[in-house]
Amino acid sequence: MARYQLILAYDGTQFQGFQRQAYTRTVQGVVEAALRQLSWEGRSILSAGRTDTGVHAVGQVAAFDLDWRHPLPELQNALNALLPLDVAVREVREAAADFHPRYDALARRYRYRCYCQGVRDPLRERIAWKVWPGLEGDTLVEAAGLLQGSHDFSAFGSPPKPHGSTLRTVYTAGWMQQDSGWVFEIQGNAFLYHMVRRLVYLQVLIGQERLTLSDFQAAIDRQQPLPPGLAPARGLTLVEVLYPAPEQEEQQSNFVEGSVKPSP
Amino acid sequence: MARYQLILAYDGTQFQGFQRQAYTRTVQGVVEAALRQLSWEGRSILSAGRTDTGVHAVGQVAAFDLDWRHPLPELQNALNALLPLDVAVREVREAAADFHPRYDALARRYRYRCYCQGVRDPLRERIAWKVWPGLEGDTLVEAAGLLQGSHDFSAFGSPPKPHGSTLRTVYTAGWMQQDSGWVFEIQGNAFLYHMVRRLVYLQVLIGQERLTLSDFQAAIDRQQPLPPGLAPARGLTLVEVLYPAPEQEEQQSNFVEGSVKPSP
Repeated sequence: MARYQLILAYDGTQFQGFQRQAYTRTVQGVVEAALRQLSWEGRSILSAGRTDTGVHAVGQVAAFDLDWRHPLPELQNALNALLPLDVAVREVREAAADFHPRYDALARRYRYRCYCQGVRDPLRERIAWKVWPGLEGDTLVEAAGLLQGSHDFSAFGSPPKPHGSTLRTVYTAGWMQQDSGWVFEIQGNAFLYHMVRRLVYLQVLIGQERLTLSDFQAAIDRQQPLPPGLAPARGLTLVEVLYPAPEQEEQQSNFVEGSVKPSP
Repeated sequence: MARYQLILAYDGTQFQGFQRQAYTRTVQGVVEAALRQLSWEGRSILSAGRTDTGVHAVGQVAAFDLDWRHPLPELQNALNALLPLDVAVREVREAAADFHPRYDALARRYRYRCYCQGVRDPLRERIAWKVWPGLEGDTLVEAAGLLQGSHDFSAFGSPPKPHGSTLRTVYTAGWMQQDSGWVFEIQGNAFLYHMVRRLVYLQVLIGQERLTLSDFQAAIDRQQPLPPGLAPARGLTLVEVLYPAPEQEEQQSNFVEGSVKPSP
């Protein structure tokens, strides 16, 4: 028996989110069903986070214990053969026995796609938000710049547990122009519930001159309330979950050992 | 009553092709249903061509006669409000009373997307073909170059009518690298049934060194048969249908008039 880590990609359109629920199609549900066909007997896989209904992923991380006696690539192939077409295992790795995809994560990276035209584009509707009128790029870039750093983001989302901390650290946030639209990328230690979609919604208001940068700044600096609203789930993709590099972990533990050992 | 021209975009995934059929969902079916809600009483809309099941479009052209007494943009808005999310009217124009989207077309442009990686990408599976092993770019580009010009393409598809001509003219054909994959674009006066998907399939074989350029050339030059096979429909998009510019038509007819008129 060993613990394995999966990097999962999925099109969230036809799923009621990640988390298993009775009677509805969820990513966790289909992954667990595939694992059971490989004689997995666990109760529940672990994941880096629960994406909402309609949210996509190219780098969701899951973990589970399995007795697998064949080469690792065969586990990936077997799972991909068993999974429906809207989910794929991008990578399988052996993990430490106590690896937890959520608690061990150092950071998460999300991407949000907008496209700017008056008429909806049926080939982008599943993965992007149609925003019209178009967005003023300079203002968008300025808004994203305000997000970097550690802030109380309570104006932008709610903590996973009631009365939990609303302090989060954003490492990078930015907008890039792409395919007659804009893509927002944000990396942070963790995010409040709905935080990325709310940040996108409010920055789109700013880019359309319907909200001022100073109101946005006041919400970041002193939690001044902002108009309600969320960008639709379909534009959002969980891109990557970051963990300490294995070498780094080793170096750290060497360092700790060194420091507690009596010097000779 | 006037004739109108629509530029249509659709995600072909959930349609059994363009052409109306009893009991199945087709693009023509849903567009005609939307028009009927606007009091259209025609029997059938005209189109530039029938895309197969799963093939997408960003520039399909349709035409119909309608008694519409409001501004043109309101016809577009009304249709977009009535159409399902996987079809959109990108443009509405008034057309000549005898405009026919198929017979008047000078050329068609198609795009085919491949992505090259070992594991399927759920977010690209609807609109691209996963090709693995990857493709040798120089050979692809060379293969596309062989297509340009007028050739008997009978090794690559069948004519719309039995014993019809298999001579077609390719104006441009080329491959571009994009997003860890390759995109093929081809513009020609018209295409045989399945011709674009077959050209893609065979060029992919060439790019994987499973078919030689000289066999491909022999099929173009002297209709030497090639291994059977088609690229999947989901990678294909009808991008544009080209018509004579209105000014050009006028100039042409002036010229003709001038040439037959007796000189003073």
